[in-house]
Amino acid sequence: MSSASLQVSRDEVQCVPVELGARSYDIVIGHRLLDDARLWRWSPRGTSAMVVTNSTVAPLYLARLRRALLASHRHVFSVELPDGEQHKDWPTLNCVFDALVQSQCDRETTIYALGGGVVGDMAGFAAACFMRGVHYVQIPTTLLAQVDSSVGGKTAINHPSGKNLIGAFHQPRAVVCDLDTLSTLPDRELRAGFAEVIKYGPIADWQFFEWIEQNIDALLAREPGALLQAVKRSCEIKAEVVARDEREGGVREILNFGHTFGHAIEAGLGFGTWLHGEAVAGGMVLAATLSARLRMIDEASVERLVSLLARCGLPTRAPALGTDRYLSLMRLDKKARDREIRFTLLDGRGRAVVRGAPDELAREVLERACRADS
Amino acid sequence: MSSASLQVSRDEVQCVPVELGARSYDIVIGHRLLDDARLWRWSPRGTSAMVVTNSTVAPLYLARLRRALLASHRHVFSVELPDGEQHKDWPTLNCVFDALVQSQCDRETTIYALGGGVVGDMAGFAAACFMRGVHYVQIPTTLLAQVDSSVGGKTAINHPSGKNLIGAFHQPRAVVCDLDTLSTLPDRELRAGFAEVIKYGPIADWQFFEWIEQNIDALLAREPGALLQAVKRSCEIKAEVVARDEREGGVREILNFGHTFGHAIEAGLGFGTWLHGEAVAGGMVLAATLSARLRMIDEASVERLVSLLARCGLPTRAPALGTDRYLSLMRLDKKARDREIRFTLLDGRGRAVVRGAPDELAREVLERACRADS
Repeated sequence: MSSASLQVSRDEVQCVPVELGARSYDIVIGHRLLDDARLWRWSPRGTSAMVVTNSTVAPLYLARLRRALLASHRHVFSVELPDGEQHKDWPTLNCVFDALVQSQCDRETTIYALGGGVVGDMAGFAAACFMRGVHYVQIPTTLLAQVDSSVGGKTAINHPSGKNLIGAFHQPRAVVCDLDTLSTLPDRELRAGFAEVIKYGPIADWQFFEWIEQNIDALLAREPGALLQAVKRSCEIKAEVVARDEREGGVREILNFGHTFGHAIEAGLGFGTWLHGEAVAGGMVLAATLSARLRMIDEASVERLVSLLARCGLPTRAPALGTDRYLSLMRLDKKARDREIRFTLLDGRGRAVVRGAPDELAREVLERACRADS
Repeated sequence: MSSASLQVSRDEVQCVPVELGARSYDIVIGHRLLDDARLWRWSPRGTSAMVVTNSTVAPLYLARLRRALLASHRHVFSVELPDGEQHKDWPTLNCVFDALVQSQCDRETTIYALGGGVVGDMAGFAAACFMRGVHYVQIPTTLLAQVDSSVGGKTAINHPSGKNLIGAFHQPRAVVCDLDTLSTLPDRELRAGFAEVIKYGPIADWQFFEWIEQNIDALLAREPGALLQAVKRSCEIKAEVVARDEREGGVREILNFGHTFGHAIEAGLGFGTWLHGEAVAGGMVLAATLSARLRMIDEASVERLVSLLARCGLPTRAPALGTDRYLSLMRLDKKARDREIRFTLLDGRGRAVVRGAPDELAREVLERACRADS
């Protein structure tokens, strides 16, 4: 059941390995993957499959996936969740548990997450908890999920006080990114996904950042070759960081660039008001500005980041939640230690570090950056 | 922070190691442990503690534990849950998350589970999920929790359809069994705890079973020396099995002797009607009878088991839920594979195996054993 047995041999398909010892797996990236029954042959014979999806994705792709899965599973069940970050909560998660119980699923059932980041996080957390852990496969259908949330085994639901506060590390058996699914993605969600693609440049690979600058028009026009390259390079960077620090005890925290401020924006506005990627874009501008105030990076780099986000139509100013509210929300961040907020900051181009910052500096950056009009 | 640094040197204290590589820990068994500040010295300095307990245990022991913990933690918070298996559900678990959030706990907070099996399972599951995993310590105050549920890292809550269906494997950093806490245990709960003590004999150590037969009066009279011996030997057997199979992929399933039928009894009657140990006692009689019908063990051994359970005042007949209801509840058991029920059965004295059994045999055993009058 190793990832090698995914049996993909077509030229246009790219495989990015995530090296985690016994928990290793492949990220498979390409076109027309969804209904390729060869992809699912590794599943143990005779077992059942539970597809977790949402009401937006199901009409588009569920029937095709179901047909492909039936070639290797005795039963294929599915459960449709309501769409949106505001449903990433316990009552919705419980729908998955109810479906698993009603379908008499067992420890050998595989859960397939068909959808964006919310579906992936919830299906993964359900897989982590159902009978204390069953296998699952990520089939991300949004850009954000393909380049970030489906890789690395972070699963969670939100608590009213904070994003992803309740969750588990539980690695998938495979991640299958069918780029064709991006063709149905609303423009706003595509743009939000590019926030996470752009993120990898400043923290890990400034050349990639420059490649995005040069190719942003092709990317926004959804040109297949450009998308393949962007998804693949993003997954490679994420896979490398996760392989070095699976449970976020160190270097993995750099992936949270923009997320400390971003999570505060999401929680402060109410989950679902801004898309996650939009909040991360606003958060990256704040974090980069704070980095520049600490003289860790030059102003020109910050301006280039702001300009690229603007070309994607992403927010480059944070909403005016009030400085105290930001600070109190950020103290709940999972990186915080004994109530001290820790930020992922840029330390030169293509390099990030995680550290604290003086409260007054964070306040100053927040006060300057927040939109007066919101 | 290794278990060796628990700094226990008093003669009357016994240490049973649970060997799980980087996740190894000690089970510390003795008297007057609860307020022994030396036990908690290993906690990282300056961090916070959250004691999870229930409304029955809190008035008895919380103040003492809190005082001891304050010697090594900057803040000691606590949350009291309602008492009883019927509260082992999501809304109650959420009280723990709310308390953690309100107290601004972080990834370095340690959760202390002070109470019986329900508190331990819920506090452990909260520790597994809060911020994707924080440390926790088990301080079991019931016999059942000291000899079974606090050891081995199984954590869970119940789903309306089945016991412990939602949970995680998450090992504690230490298990501290203060035998003095058994002095306040109601008689019914003490007896229920002996069901799990007795369990270890038929599945793993027939000599221990005979030792219990000889010492049952001293045990029921709560004689300290006998209790220490019973708790220690039970923990040794459990630790050995868990070390060989942490995630229940094989041999660990033998610990479920009596539990396949037992969980069906608990779910069928409604959680909390019979205590867990009582249901396990009824379940062990059914499983032993089924073993004898399959000629895996002699009738005399079954009779000795029934007789010992009876001397403990435990049920030796299962409630009449109806055979179909039993079978349908047991198909939800976590050991089931593709809807086939798998039983932990006795294969000679001191030896257990996990296997299927013909439905008609299970039906026959259930029909004969169920009380006509309930």
